[in-house]
Amino acid sequence: MSKDDRILLAHGGGGQLSDQLIREVILPRVGEQEGEALGDSACLTVGSEKVCMTTDSYVVKPLFFNGGNIGKLAVCGTVNDLAVAGAEPMALSLGLIIEEGFATSQLETILESIGETARSCGVSIVTGDTKTVDAGAADGIFINTAGIGRLRYPNLGLDKVQVGDRILVSGTLGDHGMTIMSLRKDIRFQSPLCSDCAPLNGLIAELMEAAPNMRFMRDATRGGVAVTLNEIARGSGYGVIIRETDLPVAPTVRAAADMLGFDVLNIANEGKIVCVVPADQAEQALACCRSHDLGQQARLIGEVVCMPEGETPWVEMETKIGGKRLVQMPYGRELPRIC
Amino acid sequence: MSKDDRILLAHGGGGQLSDQLIREVILPRVGEQEGEALGDSACLTVGSEKVCMTTDSYVVKPLFFNGGNIGKLAVCGTVNDLAVAGAEPMALSLGLIIEEGFATSQLETILESIGETARSCGVSIVTGDTKTVDAGAADGIFINTAGIGRLRYPNLGLDKVQVGDRILVSGTLGDHGMTIMSLRKDIRFQSPLCSDCAPLNGLIAELMEAAPNMRFMRDATRGGVAVTLNEIARGSGYGVIIRETDLPVAPTVRAAADMLGFDVLNIANEGKIVCVVPADQAEQALACCRSHDLGQQARLIGEVVCMPEGETPWVEMETKIGGKRLVQMPYGRELPRIC
Repeated sequence: MSKDDRILLAHGGGGQLSDQLIREVILPRVGEQEGEALGDSACLTVGSEKVCMTTDSYVVKPLFFNGGNIGKLAVCGTVNDLAVAGAEPMALSLGLIIEEGFATSQLETILESIGETARSCGVSIVTGDTKTVDAGAADGIFINTAGIGRLRYPNLGLDKVQVGDRILVSGTLGDHGMTIMSLRKDIRFQSPLCSDCAPLNGLIAELMEAAPNMRFMRDATRGGVAVTLNEIARGSGYGVIIRETDLPVAPTVRAAADMLGFDVLNIANEGKIVCVVPADQAEQALACCRSHDLGQQARLIGEVVCMPEGETPWVEMETKIGGKRLVQMPYGRELPRIC
Repeated sequence: MSKDDRILLAHGGGGQLSDQLIREVILPRVGEQEGEALGDSACLTVGSEKVCMTTDSYVVKPLFFNGGNIGKLAVCGTVNDLAVAGAEPMALSLGLIIEEGFATSQLETILESIGETARSCGVSIVTGDTKTVDAGAADGIFINTAGIGRLRYPNLGLDKVQVGDRILVSGTLGDHGMTIMSLRKDIRFQSPLCSDCAPLNGLIAELMEAAPNMRFMRDATRGGVAVTLNEIARGSGYGVIIRETDLPVAPTVRAAADMLGFDVLNIANEGKIVCVVPADQAEQALACCRSHDLGQQARLIGEVVCMPEGETPWVEMETKIGGKRLVQMPYGRELPRIC
């Protein structure tokens, strides 16, 4: 980046520009080794134990939405990051940055959601920090949570992915993102949109029992399933083919996305995982999801394929009308402040 | 707090109001058990290991100051919180919230400080998250770091404090806070103010060798030494007496504090610890500090005393002119956005 460059909103969108910022600006300065991944979570050796650690800041706007609020989101997001890494989430830290003048009653509602959500998934808030900034210096409240957990499933990784593996999504796509966007645009539907924001550690524990050779899991948040699928292709070196007809999308989300001109593949989810599962355990994994409250709309949407010699790994979608199109890594400007 | 209450800047000041917010609003909602301390750091059992975890958000204004910047601060603060808890800092997470339009060159400088400071104290940045918000929705950049470390000295705690123990400070008071305030007020001195922002894990490791029966350590940040001393009194149930003539204060800091009407006891430090050390190891601890780069101005400033029957534990200062005054817990509005 040149000397006069400035940060754009899209640098936080989870797409190509985020990726560039992390690789070109952040990692060379704070990473331990060149090219080291500063991933969604890290696994550390502490004495005789393997401990996973992750962090996320939450800047969602508006703070309250159907299905949750910034507090619920801050617990779910970090719990899910740990769970998809194969860790059992244990403890969260809670960092609050609050703008002067923020209503204490709103803060109380957010804190109640944090407490309830943490208790519902068996995680403790163990340490915290509260900072205030002058009116106009923040947008109500920003929350950071960091989480740690004991590594329980060490055999997950993009290096485990094999040709023929199936791609599973645990439910409908785009619910969180379209809920936020419709609120911002003040668009209402007869059957209201609702964020899918939920802690997935329970579902994931059951999934790992049902499909013990699971290769890889990721919660498809900023940038949607398109980001996750591209990361699978890039990280495994294989191609990914998905079928548009198999994508689970709620009718209202579909309508809202069409109306606002969004591709559901690029829209954030806050309670959905994408799994790469070996073909011979795919049906068990699917059945397991469907028997769980948070996975009833699960679907097998595609598979991992060999790349033609010399091609960069891509993600391709077989469209409804029988064509094919590339599913690209989104640029990042789609949905600012979605989480 | 009543329904119409709003958050004040002083709620983030680290004093009485912060304390009230944590006890009355935050803890009852997110804590595990009633009255449980959501301390500066927590100690967790992970399998067979004891792991400490801590977090802090950094909102200092201005972002750059003599002696450091928000990035250096974000590493030092969290490393120090772990070290004073008796843990060996191992890994940090890094959460960035950046305002649209922030200069990439400034971000790069901040990230370089983060990387350098982390390397200098043997800690890795292992995971991170970057969020952007629209112009006007944040104040340049806010940083959160969370840290974990292996518990190395499990015998520290306010319950270990005994009558007769000595109070040691590792160096001059108020350097960080007065540096920031003078910048904001645009006041300059012939010998410039400089923040004491520094990672203290190295000094603390040496101190624990020199004084293995150390009772308690705390880095005296927001609210200054006054907060730490009051926490020692409240947490141990004993009184604390300090001597004004023994307080180490740099002449320029003294001049700036007098000019601006601050009490150095209430001013934030970012590279100083307050220790409670048994009397028979106090001289060794002092000598150890003074032989370390970061502790050359260390002083024994007071001691732990019995409280008269029925009195709430207090902190008292013998003044220069031979009088006595209470050192109160500051209210919180002294120095907003100091770290």
